[in-house]
Amino acid sequence: MPELRKDPIIARWVIIAVERGKRPTDFVSPSTHRKKSGFCPFCPGNEYTTPPEIMAFRAPDTKPNTPGWTLRVMPNKFPALQIHGVLDKKGEGIFDRMNGIGAHEVIVETPDHHLSLSTMSLKGVENVLWASYLRLSDLKKDQRFKYVLIFKNEGEAAGASLEHTHTQLIALPIVPRLVKDEIDSSRQYYDLKDRCVFCDVINQELEDGKRMIYESNKYVAIAPFAARAPFETWILPKTHESNFNPPGKSFSDLADILQRVLKQMDKILDLPPYNFVLHTSPFYDEVNEHYHWHFEIMPKLTKIAGFEWGSGFYINPTPPEEAAKFMREAKI
Amino acid sequence: MPELRKDPIIARWVIIAVERGKRPTDFVSPSTHRKKSGFCPFCPGNEYTTPPEIMAFRAPDTKPNTPGWTLRVMPNKFPALQIHGVLDKKGEGIFDRMNGIGAHEVIVETPDHHLSLSTMSLKGVENVLWASYLRLSDLKKDQRFKYVLIFKNEGEAAGASLEHTHTQLIALPIVPRLVKDEIDSSRQYYDLKDRCVFCDVINQELEDGKRMIYESNKYVAIAPFAARAPFETWILPKTHESNFNPPGKSFSDLADILQRVLKQMDKILDLPPYNFVLHTSPFYDEVNEHYHWHFEIMPKLTKIAGFEWGSGFYINPTPPEEAAKFMREAKI
Repeated sequence: MPELRKDPIIARWVIIAVERGKRPTDFVSPSTHRKKSGFCPFCPGNEYTTPPEIMAFRAPDTKPNTPGWTLRVMPNKFPALQIHGVLDKKGEGIFDRMNGIGAHEVIVETPDHHLSLSTMSLKGVENVLWASYLRLSDLKKDQRFKYVLIFKNEGEAAGASLEHTHTQLIALPIVPRLVKDEIDSSRQYYDLKDRCVFCDVINQELEDGKRMIYESNKYVAIAPFAARAPFETWILPKTHESNFNPPGKSFSDLADILQRVLKQMDKILDLPPYNFVLHTSPFYDEVNEHYHWHFEIMPKLTKIAGFEWGSGFYINPTPPEEAAKFMREAKI
Repeated sequence: MPELRKDPIIARWVIIAVERGKRPTDFVSPSTHRKKSGFCPFCPGNEYTTPPEIMAFRAPDTKPNTPGWTLRVMPNKFPALQIHGVLDKKGEGIFDRMNGIGAHEVIVETPDHHLSLSTMSLKGVENVLWASYLRLSDLKKDQRFKYVLIFKNEGEAAGASLEHTHTQLIALPIVPRLVKDEIDSSRQYYDLKDRCVFCDVINQELEDGKRMIYESNKYVAIAPFAARAPFETWILPKTHESNFNPPGKSFSDLADILQRVLKQMDKILDLPPYNFVLHTSPFYDEVNEHYHWHFEIMPKLTKIAGFEWGSGFYINPTPPEEAAKFMREAKI
């Protein structure tokens, strides 16, 4: 019997095929092996082909926009939003609009075209987290922005247009709908219970164990109870933290669990395309008792489910308990 | 300057690339020409390979599950939900679950493998709407169900696993999240204004004209103000109707506008893969003043946008005003 499960945070029901669930080998997705065919604007030596860098981790004796970097951040060459201008919020009858003001940046994670977030050094992953945090902290100063969306598309099937591993960042004058829904719902839960709903979920998962993927000193990786898709994985801080930040000024623990999860996915799903998104509190309410920042990671394994965009309804052929078990048992 | 626009119904912000918007010819999507390679379980003569039919429009002298039909409805051979059993709603600590009880049916729209909803006879499209309505009316009698989701995946890229044109129907003991959000928001709007938000949108669009695609006696086709993707199109009844039904016991007007829109899309986008979803009021509140049923049609033109699933945030490279203009001017 399939099961209907409700996400405890935003009350989203999903269908979980609890019997005869699909195993990792049942999925055929294009693997993300790097081929490097042709010119790559993100490779060292080609810095002149991208917009000028905003920041970089580079050898002290090297100049901006030249080789010698280990990580590089620049504006997206084809930005979805423009950095200059005023919001000019306006009504148009029943409709609301504003200028598309925002920042759209690219974090090139490593100079090596053949590495990925799962194969680079742990220090490299830490660098990506630091760069994300530093850019977020800088963009926060801009009074026009309310939120920074940090996300990654790995592999063409997951929407990456360039093969060279990179993370993206979009600063927005609004809060994206799904994040806003999570925040609103978690605030309601807090009003009712005086507890963070994410903390409650984490405590139950730690006790129960069957959806646990990994537990480190400061973080947990879990398969969410109402996962939308096979092998969806969340990484959360174990104690309450409303906004993304380096505990004790270090991202080494977070880098470790993030890379571990990605290595596990690579192992059991053969380098799958995937997306991740960082959900954190908006700038205007960064420190609070109700919301809990986290990463949501989703390998792209199933065909585009036709009606999801139009219904918000998901059918997941792999129970999260099984996904978690496969992940736990992956030898990495 | 790109623009941020807010959907007036569910307060979803999207980025619209108002300048240098992508034109129909900028998109490369696999066309949905029928190839018919190999065995097709939906073709006449192969009725024995599918689960027994639930209903059919067929010649009076023909037997169920034999040729002679013009439209055929049967359970999905690989249903996402099971029809037999009880819901058995249960908590599991903080989580909520119930058995995956529901119906998952397939409407084979025509016996002709080479036709589509846009190329079949108008009478054929009417039949599809009638079959949808009759099945919905029948499933409504089942007290376990709250909602029937009617949707279509056309083309492999839109999630269709079989080429032979068909519509699907899933009866659910819950209301899908996006529909529920629309209903809740439209109720709030009604409480505030004593008007249906959809009616307000329709009136403004009729007056304004720039996002109008087609207006018939009873229906309008519009490009929504905050469209999530290029050429997203909504079809709505012009006067307030909360639930999907045949006005004056006829679906001919609706069939006409639906087929017209699909023909226009075929013409300018070269038989694109697409999805549609019917949004209607749930069974427990079918007739009301605040919700307004409609079709949402979305051609699958852009690559899977990586972070949409994780943020509910969309970037649309084609302004709906331009999409509507291309649609209006399509010679069909």
